Amino acid sequence: MLNRRKVIGGIGGAAIAAAAGAQLVGSRNRRKLGYAIVGLGYYATRMIMPQFANCTNSRLTALVSGTPSKLEQFGAEYDIPARSRYSYAQFDSIRDNPDVDIVYVVLPNSMHAEYTIRAARAGKHVLCEKPMAISSAECEAMIAACRAAGRKLMIGYRSHFQPHNIHAMRLARQGAIGKRRFVQSEHGFPINNPSQWRLDRELSGGGSMMDIGIYSVQALRYMAGEEPIAVTATENTDRNDPRFREVEDRIAWSFLYPSGLIGNGLSSYSSNHNHIRLSGDNGWIDLEPGTAYDGHHMRVRKGWDEPQDVKPPPGPGANQFAAQLDHLAVSVLENREPIVGGAEGIQDVRLIEAIYRSAKEGRTIRL
Amino acid sequence: MLNRRKVIGGIGGAAIAAAAGAQLVGSRNRRKLGYAIVGLGYYATRMIMPQFANCTNSRLTALVSGTPSKLEQFGAEYDIPARSRYSYAQFDSIRDNPDVDIVYVVLPNSMHAEYTIRAARAGKHVLCEKPMAISSAECEAMIAACRAAGRKLMIGYRSHFQPHNIHAMRLARQGAIGKRRFVQSEHGFPINNPSQWRLDRELSGGGSMMDIGIYSVQALRYMAGEEPIAVTATENTDRNDPRFREVEDRIAWSFLYPSGLIGNGLSSYSSNHNHIRLSGDNGWIDLEPGTAYDGHHMRVRKGWDEPQDVKPPPGPGANQFAAQLDHLAVSVLENREPIVGGAEGIQDVRLIEAIYRSAKEGRTIRL
Repeated sequence: MLNRRKVIGGIGGAAIAAAAGAQLVGSRNRRKLGYAIVGLGYYATRMIMPQFANCTNSRLTALVSGTPSKLEQFGAEYDIPARSRYSYAQFDSIRDNPDVDIVYVVLPNSMHAEYTIRAARAGKHVLCEKPMAISSAECEAMIAACRAAGRKLMIGYRSHFQPHNIHAMRLARQGAIGKRRFVQSEHGFPINNPSQWRLDRELSGGGSMMDIGIYSVQALRYMAGEEPIAVTATENTDRNDPRFREVEDRIAWSFLYPSGLIGNGLSSYSSNHNHIRLSGDNGWIDLEPGTAYDGHHMRVRKGWDEPQDVKPPPGPGANQFAAQLDHLAVSVLENREPIVGGAEGIQDVRLIEAIYRSAKEGRTIRL
Repeated sequence: MLNRRKVIGGIGGAAIAAAAGAQLVGSRNRRKLGYAIVGLGYYATRMIMPQFANCTNSRLTALVSGTPSKLEQFGAEYDIPARSRYSYAQFDSIRDNPDVDIVYVVLPNSMHAEYTIRAARAGKHVLCEKPMAISSAECEAMIAACRAAGRKLMIGYRSHFQPHNIHAMRLARQGAIGKRRFVQSEHGFPINNPSQWRLDRELSGGGSMMDIGIYSVQALRYMAGEEPIAVTATENTDRNDPRFREVEDRIAWSFLYPSGLIGNGLSSYSSNHNHIRLSGDNGWIDLEPGTAYDGHHMRVRKGWDEPQDVKPPPGPGANQFAAQLDHLAVSVLENREPIVGGAEGIQDVRLIEAIYRSAKEGRTIRL
């Protein structure tokens, strides 16, 4: 655990720093909202839960898991009383727990819709991990449920709270590299363990696109600053590989945008990628790694000059994880919409559906 | 001129170094074959002609130009006698010049076929700049003419004589990064001067694809080590921009290969790119710049390790330009086929035709 904390960069205790924009400014309200974490897997327990110690407006108050030993172990570690430890069968009674303001859904993809909707119906605000759900129809139901309940919905797009990504978007908007002409993003890793849930279509809803390619989709959107109007995709998957009997391995695609910008994306379960580059008519901005847990690296090239390393100004919060948790808490406290709400989540899922369709039909899909 | 020589890296006087493979080894024959340069533009006069001083088997013996003052200026500079200075009208009499063994065609693209065919008919071997021609039909005629005349034909793909590119191909073949899964290459520059020949379709045959995107096509092929079986492309060109009234600006495309490898390419006349990356299931090889005149930079990443800078072993010749000139000379002297002959050139032109067609029709083209 200590080791893992080191990996994610423990700028522990840092206050919410000079923020990137009004939307990201921390609340003057010092109240801490209570989070219930639903699903105690690696990401929840190793990456998210240690971060409440770095939060200003968020605290961990409840746990939901199907594994009693996990509830016991993490309940003890984080001082969660027995009444705030839930099995999935008990989940709906979370409505009666005044210590829980927000439910953070960190389950396999196919369970996102169900637990988001049940949380909203229980009167809780929801932070849901990406992908928002495994179909745009599910996303619509999630948005409707949160709206009907009068509760906030945010999707776990932590890059929007990460200093290098925030600074790259800012430079692009300011015209630092001229007019935007080409954006590219590749995300992937060689997946192993054929029995993991990511390779089980029932749980994942898809292959690399749903898990890691969605970072490329997101990056191609936030670096562009506009929405694609067409997509053209190519897939390759070795169906004889035991990992890929149910889900896709690699997909490459191009987005075309209204301004004429072109975007190339890659999603892979059989090669290493974590890269974003935006090229203008007067240089480029490069992030590699671009969306990692830490260790981000940014280079900017002006015209034909040598590329320069750029250290961005501090972002909000102690790090992207803590800032993300606090952003939803502050959005709730101040009754503002989160910057990455349901509309952001459904757009990525719609684009992934279009990418799948383009690859399958071998033609450009107009959006 | 001195300045330019510095730019291209004057490893002057270096002998043909330990070569990459048998095909690139220099000849033990010390005879120097005579080259006629056809077209005295920037590339010919600044990049190529100074390199004969670094060659082992090649010398400059004739000049062909439509501009008498250029013939006079460069004829004097390179000590070319008046009888070996030709206008285009006089070109066919080059057959009677025993000092000329090889004709190097460095003309605008639409003139490549004509001068290659006329050179072959005049009994000369031919080095032709890329793109080989502006259509695959022209390429076929060029191959047929050289075959009928019993003369060698080589296309100016200098990356095959450039140490970083040679080493990258070698590492890929040796499995240094595992099984090849994704290859990408972006080439482009913001073009200016709307009146230049590259933007005149009559002379160029096309836009960025013909001039700079062809480097991406080539790189996607030589880094893959196999030929694409399908292509899917997206184009964007602002036809209101005075530069792009006749030719395309940007095209992005994906190649699919028999092994399942996917390749993403970009060609641009409105942003800076000179990049090649091959990703395997155990790391990647990155060249940036990848196909510049000099200053190549290579990084290799093994698995999840930190990327490492890699300095390749010396390639053949003093540099890629001299090695290319000598390769054809040695191929002639030893009656071997050049490693980048007409078959290599026509394949790129066929792929460019397929890329254009895919972008126009909005669908995947099977090859």
